[in-house]
Amino acid sequence: MNNLYSHILGFENAFRIEIEKIKQTKPFQLYEPIAYSLSIGGKRLRPALMLHAASLFSESTTQVLPAAMAIEIFHNFTLLHDDIMDKADVRRGLPTVHKKYSENAAILSGDAMSILAFKYLAQGNSVSLAEILNLFSDTALEVCDGQQMDMDFESLSNVTIVEYMEMIRLKTAVLIASSLKIGALVSNAPHADANLLYEYGINVGLAFQLQDDWLDVFGDPAIFGKKQGGDICANKKTYLLLRAIEKADHTSLTILNEWIQKTEFDANEKIAAIKGVYEQTKVSEETHRLMVIYQNKALAALDKINVSEEKKQILQAFAIEATERMK
Amino acid sequence: MNNLYSHILGFENAFRIEIEKIKQTKPFQLYEPIAYSLSIGGKRLRPALMLHAASLFSESTTQVLPAAMAIEIFHNFTLLHDDIMDKADVRRGLPTVHKKYSENAAILSGDAMSILAFKYLAQGNSVSLAEILNLFSDTALEVCDGQQMDMDFESLSNVTIVEYMEMIRLKTAVLIASSLKIGALVSNAPHADANLLYEYGINVGLAFQLQDDWLDVFGDPAIFGKKQGGDICANKKTYLLLRAIEKADHTSLTILNEWIQKTEFDANEKIAAIKGVYEQTKVSEETHRLMVIYQNKALAALDKINVSEEKKQILQAFAIEATERMK
Repeated sequence: MNNLYSHILGFENAFRIEIEKIKQTKPFQLYEPIAYSLSIGGKRLRPALMLHAASLFSESTTQVLPAAMAIEIFHNFTLLHDDIMDKADVRRGLPTVHKKYSENAAILSGDAMSILAFKYLAQGNSVSLAEILNLFSDTALEVCDGQQMDMDFESLSNVTIVEYMEMIRLKTAVLIASSLKIGALVSNAPHADANLLYEYGINVGLAFQLQDDWLDVFGDPAIFGKKQGGDICANKKTYLLLRAIEKADHTSLTILNEWIQKTEFDANEKIAAIKGVYEQTKVSEETHRLMVIYQNKALAALDKINVSEEKKQILQAFAIEATERMK
Repeated sequence: MNNLYSHILGFENAFRIEIEKIKQTKPFQLYEPIAYSLSIGGKRLRPALMLHAASLFSESTTQVLPAAMAIEIFHNFTLLHDDIMDKADVRRGLPTVHKKYSENAAILSGDAMSILAFKYLAQGNSVSLAEILNLFSDTALEVCDGQQMDMDFESLSNVTIVEYMEMIRLKTAVLIASSLKIGALVSNAPHADANLLYEYGINVGLAFQLQDDWLDVFGDPAIFGKKQGGDICANKKTYLLLRAIEKADHTSLTILNEWIQKTEFDANEKIAAIKGVYEQTKVSEETHRLMVIYQNKALAALDKINVSEEKKQILQAFAIEATERMK
């Protein structure tokens, strides 16, 4: 996401200082896991998008830094608690908080992180605070709704594509969209423009998650940074799988069902078999066509925003990069 | 807490409607455990205190209802997650959320409850929202700090009384104090008075918790509603135990240490033995003297608040009831 690089850098410098403060806070058993979780990185995409959105309507972006930290802390809190629920041992190549410390530490430190996000939000002290707090808490609840749907899908055999798209809207897209909208609101942007940025964010977020699912199967692990086929091994109901089930002929459907039902298997064999069905059913191309639809919706919303064409370039590029990125 | 009865009743009526709405929210797997946790009761002490504090400075108290719901939802969220961490199976005579549903359901529903608290807070839409959000998030973090200290105490052999008092200030007193202060702020009370209510709340909260610890040992289970000696069986480091360790002679100290170290024991025998030491060391009387100190500090703070004597009567009675209550 090189186009947002200056915002990522500006955010990261300010955030490192905050993480250091958090690390020094007592009781250490509570705040050290928080500092650990925040310092192991991530793309810092949401705060960078928020800073950029703010910059569209205001010369200065320092006034949006507390809200940018709030959104990044909240995002990492959801990852921390999701990792407990998913029993995931590794994140970004390092042990997850519940593995490194304990499950109780991960529950309580996560709780404190979620509250900390609201504390940073309050520090912003914007004239739109009531509206921002409303949007932030609605969005945060939607992320929980999305996580619940994702967990429910594990034991459901008849998940539809509409349900899947709604799940990724809630679990991923709304936080990206709200990041942009809050950035605009802090800069006192007109409501119409703030709402168009939200619409842009929803559509980019959906495309972003579809590309994430695609990279899990077809990405280069050396670039993407994750082992290939994680979703396949876990029978994750992604767009690729749901669409393959719809399109598969009798033989391919038998292959899919057999591999989905196996509890013991060689990971590489399972990945190769299911990838074979994905290729036969051409769902990779379809996923890309769907991404382009969302990309175009995002660009159409962006087009209507009342700022100069020059100012729109970074978000135009980001909408394209979200679907073409290899990591 | 009969003196607050009208506020408890008013709150409960409004809250039942909200709980019903929450119960009808999708995805049900997320919101049903929240509705369950909120509907199994509790004293509704914090919202009632908030409503009462608001009534000292304003004719109407309806404007404080959303914040009162926020504080009650937050309080129940902490109980829900504490029950996971403490592996507690029963609360208020009913199965805890992680027992009735699952641990994952309890984690995620708790997360959503914590966010829901902030959502209700935003709905209040008061002119002091930034200040209220700051106070609420600081208080919420302090409650986490207190829970962390409480967990740390389990494996510490040298907890001091000062540390214990700090733990109960954080885990219990600050939320009571903030309930009162937020009530005052929403009613646009002068800051000096809001801060005096906070001071009153801290001291009443400390007395309240000391009485809770005392009731665990000396209360009548039929009235208190909890089995006697729960803290004793769990080696909870209460004021009673810490002070008994300080005051015990050689023989009594040996008795205490022996029972504390036993991993298998008859509960009634252990309770009787440790109660015997408490009686011999007169720590029950000492606990009451300490409660009276906090009660007097609370009354002194109340005395300075700039409202009529008549309006102070309910909080005067509450300060006394907090230390004399049997349930």
